[in-house]
Amino acid sequence: MAKKTEEGITIEKEKDIAEWYSQVCLKSELADYGSVKGTMVIRPRGYQIWQEIQDYFNKNIIEKTNVENAYFPLFVPESFFKKESQHAEGFQPEVAWLDKKVTGEGERLAIRPTSETIIYDSFSKWIRSYRDLPMKINQWCNIVRWETEATKLFLRSREFLWQEGHCAYETESECSKETINYIKLYEKLCKELLAIPVIVGQKTEKEKFAGAEKTYTIEAFMPDGKALQCGTSHELGQGFAKAFKISFTDKNENPEIPWQNSWGLSTRLIGAIVMVHSDNKGLVLPPTLVKNKIAIIPIIKGEDKKVLKKAKEIEQTLKSFNPILDDRLEYTPGWKYHEYELNGIPIRIEIGPKDLEKNQAVVIRRDNGQKKFVPLKNLKKVVEEELKKMHKDLYDKAEKFLKSKIISAKNFNDLKKGIEERKLVLAPFCGSESCEDEIKEKTKGATTRCVPFGSKIPKSDCIHCKKKATCEVYFSKSY
Amino acid sequence: MAKKTEEGITIEKEKDIAEWYSQVCLKSELADYGSVKGTMVIRPRGYQIWQEIQDYFNKNIIEKTNVENAYFPLFVPESFFKKESQHAEGFQPEVAWLDKKVTGEGERLAIRPTSETIIYDSFSKWIRSYRDLPMKINQWCNIVRWETEATKLFLRSREFLWQEGHCAYETESECSKETINYIKLYEKLCKELLAIPVIVGQKTEKEKFAGAEKTYTIEAFMPDGKALQCGTSHELGQGFAKAFKISFTDKNENPEIPWQNSWGLSTRLIGAIVMVHSDNKGLVLPPTLVKNKIAIIPIIKGEDKKVLKKAKEIEQTLKSFNPILDDRLEYTPGWKYHEYELNGIPIRIEIGPKDLEKNQAVVIRRDNGQKKFVPLKNLKKVVEEELKKMHKDLYDKAEKFLKSKIISAKNFNDLKKGIEERKLVLAPFCGSESCEDEIKEKTKGATTRCVPFGSKIPKSDCIHCKKKATCEVYFSKSY
Repeated sequence: MAKKTEEGITIEKEKDIAEWYSQVCLKSELADYGSVKGTMVIRPRGYQIWQEIQDYFNKNIIEKTNVENAYFPLFVPESFFKKESQHAEGFQPEVAWLDKKVTGEGERLAIRPTSETIIYDSFSKWIRSYRDLPMKINQWCNIVRWETEATKLFLRSREFLWQEGHCAYETESECSKETINYIKLYEKLCKELLAIPVIVGQKTEKEKFAGAEKTYTIEAFMPDGKALQCGTSHELGQGFAKAFKISFTDKNENPEIPWQNSWGLSTRLIGAIVMVHSDNKGLVLPPTLVKNKIAIIPIIKGEDKKVLKKAKEIEQTLKSFNPILDDRLEYTPGWKYHEYELNGIPIRIEIGPKDLEKNQAVVIRRDNGQKKFVPLKNLKKVVEEELKKMHKDLYDKAEKFLKSKIISAKNFNDLKKGIEERKLVLAPFCGSESCEDEIKEKTKGATTRCVPFGSKIPKSDCIHCKKKATCEVYFSKSY
Repeated sequence: MAKKTEEGITIEKEKDIAEWYSQVCLKSELADYGSVKGTMVIRPRGYQIWQEIQDYFNKNIIEKTNVENAYFPLFVPESFFKKESQHAEGFQPEVAWLDKKVTGEGERLAIRPTSETIIYDSFSKWIRSYRDLPMKINQWCNIVRWETEATKLFLRSREFLWQEGHCAYETESECSKETINYIKLYEKLCKELLAIPVIVGQKTEKEKFAGAEKTYTIEAFMPDGKALQCGTSHELGQGFAKAFKISFTDKNENPEIPWQNSWGLSTRLIGAIVMVHSDNKGLVLPPTLVKNKIAIIPIIKGEDKKVLKKAKEIEQTLKSFNPILDDRLEYTPGWKYHEYELNGIPIRIEIGPKDLEKNQAVVIRRDNGQKKFVPLKNLKKVVEEELKKMHKDLYDKAEKFLKSKIISAKNFNDLKKGIEERKLVLAPFCGSESCEDEIKEKTKGATTRCVPFGSKIPKSDCIHCKKKATCEVYFSKSY
């Protein structure tokens, strides 16, 4: 049974998206701020979404690609970071360390900001022969990065939950192929489960993961004109394997070094879902992510036993959707509508004395407010169809929005103007880190998001430095 | 496909159980030591067991008792511990703190050794009215307790995984009833899922949880004559609620303080499973906990295509049990037997040319070595039955062992002798902490395990101090 909520969303998404976002997360009880600065509590409604992501992931990605779940320690010895120099440099500013009074005279211990080092230390013990490969491990865990910027629920916090996949292969080609496969599986998850369209591509040298040879990414585009990185997969080459002395003997008894990748997505995805789908009434969620998919509201004055009886029958008929039958007399139907809208219940069903006469119920969709008068005998079928349709409609709407925001820039002015107008701007680019820095400065914050899959090397020059372009890349502001 | 293992278990369970236990965990690839002292890696075979426990728990306990999963921060401010003085005192020696260089000028931050304080801080914000009660939350997470004693995989490590349930109720009676219900659900989980019989009862004053009014426990008994606490539920009364200022208005608008409980079980259970069921060949597991329930081994010399073809048919027939068909030619059948015995695969199926002639296969059970010649047409049915029977047989065997170790002591000599002989000794007891300390000293380590449910207040005097007994309690050594 839903709890009494004090008030709805008091600010419009279009007016102040940051405040709106925070209100939606808090008031729909997805999350709360923790008492320790920078931390968050994932409340049951939010954690339900994470569980659905985990279930989908375990079933459609882990099992199907023969990965196995495992769990590695939270603590990383300082020396592990130093083994791969780029990696150490990349994570150094964000690492939280344990008090030496606890750990004693030994080396400093970090709380994992990612687990490449701790997992590859184990790989070096477990991998001996080509028979041990591919070794494919995934871990669901908490991650700590000591962010200094302001906390945003799900999007930026000092602790978050994620999965990290770590694989080692005999050959470079197998490793490359699978690294790309994982990012494509992430894209599929976003579409099938979250109804979020993403752009898939490769990060530039500047933006790639610390220690990777190549980083692939899925990027969603938020209503405020900022991109949100939703998942990455990293081709690590042999760098970590060499640093952690991982080797195997091949079929001819020769010593070889394996090729590795890692890939992850996090509770940040929940933030993306809220940003993309929700509205000024509160939460809107793809139905798969919601436990109670239906709220049944009998329109009764006093105790109308006939209507209530029918409402209970409907509850039974729709049992597989975990409906909430809200027959509380102390709240008006209007108050209840707001409550379930705020909490993102996908479908509301109303039934009153007049509906009873006509043997019908009213079915209202949360995402578009569409209202249908449905004969009771068709109710289950209609609900089923509408829930499916809702997912598709949410995706189509988000895709339409994404496409409307993409422009191609022919010159630097186009790029600058596009960024000012909060667009996602495709432009020819030289690939240099310093050029990227300059573009960021001149556009007041645009970064490269990715070189989209399937794009060709353009014949034109770099949009900024005029040197020969090596790729087409998306620029935008980002979270 | 199974990996090549260097050697089997080289020490007998009866000779050196500690070394045997560690070999079973390591060699069957359930777990490994982490690089940081006191930590462990839960490898896929071990994590599979934890996932089965999670699935059972979410389905049979969380859902059925209307608890919701959520996630709370890893970090606990020092001031939170101080709010409940007994709690702070109980956990103080084991807490790991963050480096102040990271956290800055604010108060010290601990890594959660348990989450009562951090969760009840949230409860104080979320609970306003009787409508918000009962509030029933569960969290799956990692826990850190800076143990100083030697690490034992699963049984004692500085980090482990667990679930912790936290509920708040309107009335004391509802709270009491449910606290007992959770410990009984734990007992059921141990029986139905892990095939482990436990003793259920209440902890003495000395052994109860820091901050609890009453602690209930399930205690399993290990083959080396030590009890292992496998799960606890704590009736917290109103102590934490007062300390964290949790209150609600009742139906008559009066302010009230809720009643609380918490309850948890951990990856320690995996250690119990290994200890109770495994043998000198390696791992023995209740079939539900194993992903690949069957290994099919064709007895072939060179390439016997007929036998191999039949083995593949069997693989198809038994698909729902995730069978491993091991047709590798570079290993002998005998080598393979050892491999699957070590890894605890519940059933091995052999098929050779002679079996083919007779349209049969050989079905061998891991737990008792029982060998059955089974007509191929009955194979699926027999496998199904044997898997079920195996679970029951494992439980019955463990229960018989447990019962054989229980004795009743009439006087202190009985108790002392019983503890020397590594028994679980039931004795009348006064309930005093100092008396308990003295008994521990005089018996070289016996502690009270629990006052079993259903036991009556004995008419005799305390087994040690001769004061009036207030209860009958189990004494034994313990992990």
